[in-house]
Amino acid sequence: MLEHELKAGDPGNLKIALIGAGAVGAYYGGILSHAGENVHFLLRSDYDTVSKNGLKLIRHGRDEFVLTPPVHDKAADIGEADMVIVAAKTTANPDLPALIDPLMGAHTVLLTLQNGMGNCEFFAQRYGAERIMAGLCFVCINRTAPGVIENYMPGYVMFGEFVGTAKPRTRDIAARFIRAGSPASITDTLEEALWRKLFWNVPFNGLTIAAGGIPTGELLKNPELERLARDIMKELQDIAAAYGHAISDAFIQKQFDATYPMGDYKPSSLLDYLEGKPVEVDAIWGEPLRRSHAAGIPAPRLHTLHALLTQLCKGKG
Amino acid sequence: MLEHELKAGDPGNLKIALIGAGAVGAYYGGILSHAGENVHFLLRSDYDTVSKNGLKLIRHGRDEFVLTPPVHDKAADIGEADMVIVAAKTTANPDLPALIDPLMGAHTVLLTLQNGMGNCEFFAQRYGAERIMAGLCFVCINRTAPGVIENYMPGYVMFGEFVGTAKPRTRDIAARFIRAGSPASITDTLEEALWRKLFWNVPFNGLTIAAGGIPTGELLKNPELERLARDIMKELQDIAAAYGHAISDAFIQKQFDATYPMGDYKPSSLLDYLEGKPVEVDAIWGEPLRRSHAAGIPAPRLHTLHALLTQLCKGKG
Repeated sequence: MLEHELKAGDPGNLKIALIGAGAVGAYYGGILSHAGENVHFLLRSDYDTVSKNGLKLIRHGRDEFVLTPPVHDKAADIGEADMVIVAAKTTANPDLPALIDPLMGAHTVLLTLQNGMGNCEFFAQRYGAERIMAGLCFVCINRTAPGVIENYMPGYVMFGEFVGTAKPRTRDIAARFIRAGSPASITDTLEEALWRKLFWNVPFNGLTIAAGGIPTGELLKNPELERLARDIMKELQDIAAAYGHAISDAFIQKQFDATYPMGDYKPSSLLDYLEGKPVEVDAIWGEPLRRSHAAGIPAPRLHTLHALLTQLCKGKG
Repeated sequence: MLEHELKAGDPGNLKIALIGAGAVGAYYGGILSHAGENVHFLLRSDYDTVSKNGLKLIRHGRDEFVLTPPVHDKAADIGEADMVIVAAKTTANPDLPALIDPLMGAHTVLLTLQNGMGNCEFFAQRYGAERIMAGLCFVCINRTAPGVIENYMPGYVMFGEFVGTAKPRTRDIAARFIRAGSPASITDTLEEALWRKLFWNVPFNGLTIAAGGIPTGELLKNPELERLARDIMKELQDIAAAYGHAISDAFIQKQFDATYPMGDYKPSSLLDYLEGKPVEVDAIWGEPLRRSHAAGIPAPRLHTLHALLTQLCKGKG
């Protein structure tokens, strides 16, 4: 086995540790576990509920089921894993190494399913770049009660490598997700995929908060805000270009075309904001802003939005 | 008498009509009336209260008094005046001509005490540019109950002409305000004075709203927001420069030096916003933004702030 390559093959032949069993983590950990993968959940607030009642997954229009995966309240009890899936909020990143360290063996791969930018770099610095993979989740999942996870549309996960292009392990992970019931794709250009995801998240997650906690439909009814969303995407286009990623005007238009039919959709950051939970300000807005500074590309609207969000989202959670 | 020049001299020799007896209007109308000027108040919501109980003015640390000026609920009952003082909210501008028309004779002068930019132009278009004067109010006045007006610091009013430099009538009006107890000054460059006032109002009135309804002290505790306030002033500096007004970096610094000691001050627009009243979005943010477009000077932070405020302040009042 190559270093940091994973055993391909049958469900259950990898020891997977899941860190951050919020909505996204519990959902993907849950469907993998349901498909026979050997997933160990590290839980904190939901530990008692899930160890007593199991984890209930509701996939609207498909099925619902309860499963009782191995759960732990201490990382040391899981021990070394083949793969660590990190699905914690990025706002918790500074606290994660203490949880992840006991899981990392010489060959362990770390897959982050987190939002925004800068997460791969964060883990690469501590654990080495070659180990790091990311999965970009385009999906809508809510934790509707302790131990209850609801998924409304299958969505999909796009997997990529922090270093280089897709490897056998990238395709293998995608295959495992597909087998578990989640559409998946792979990318050879993870960084560009991360930029592309931000084209939606930066304006829509941000402006729906800053404009007073309104859903996307209401935002797009205000022509000033629609224009602002577009101008923010143009700033991202300039920054991404400075890093070698040519993202077209047509891609910008696609973001709007996809958002109109969503109606009064509340982006995940807006839901966090409205529920008083931590908002991932640094990963979604702070990191691209730092990259604009580093590249010497002006991003004044992103700057304005970020500054307002640092205040609006202060002390949440 | 020159056309649109006013009789100088003793209190009471001018017929003054006051339109918009909110806090600012009632205060200045009140002290002028108290000093013997012939001020006719046009009232709507406060008409019954003031005609029954009079108008109570509280000047903290100085005096308080009740006066019973002539009040009217129809402009036609006032008839032609020598001077019309407009102190209505700028958001009411479209409705004002109907109130002002009956007051305007061939020689009537119109003095706007309103916030923001574009008011002189609005009235000039209808009544002729030569008639128009403005008074910039640097003061803190609240209407604490119907017919009750409180003033906390004397502040001052800066008078200027819409066309050309200060005239005898400019100095005469300033003298009447001073005689009535308000410090006053005159400027030969009204447009530049309006820009300078916006250097404070645009960032502080705007960001305290957009950052979640926080006072200035809290805003300045957030280094991201302080920097944003400064960057917005730099955008205004560029726009003003394009119109021939050189406003120094030292002036920008002065805005901060003056704001720190204010502590947790709530700018007037923030108070309006928090009380659900109309916010003067167009006069304070919209008009300078239009001027940036007209001059081809980018003002992306002002653009962002304006777009957010159009939404945050929508449907207020």
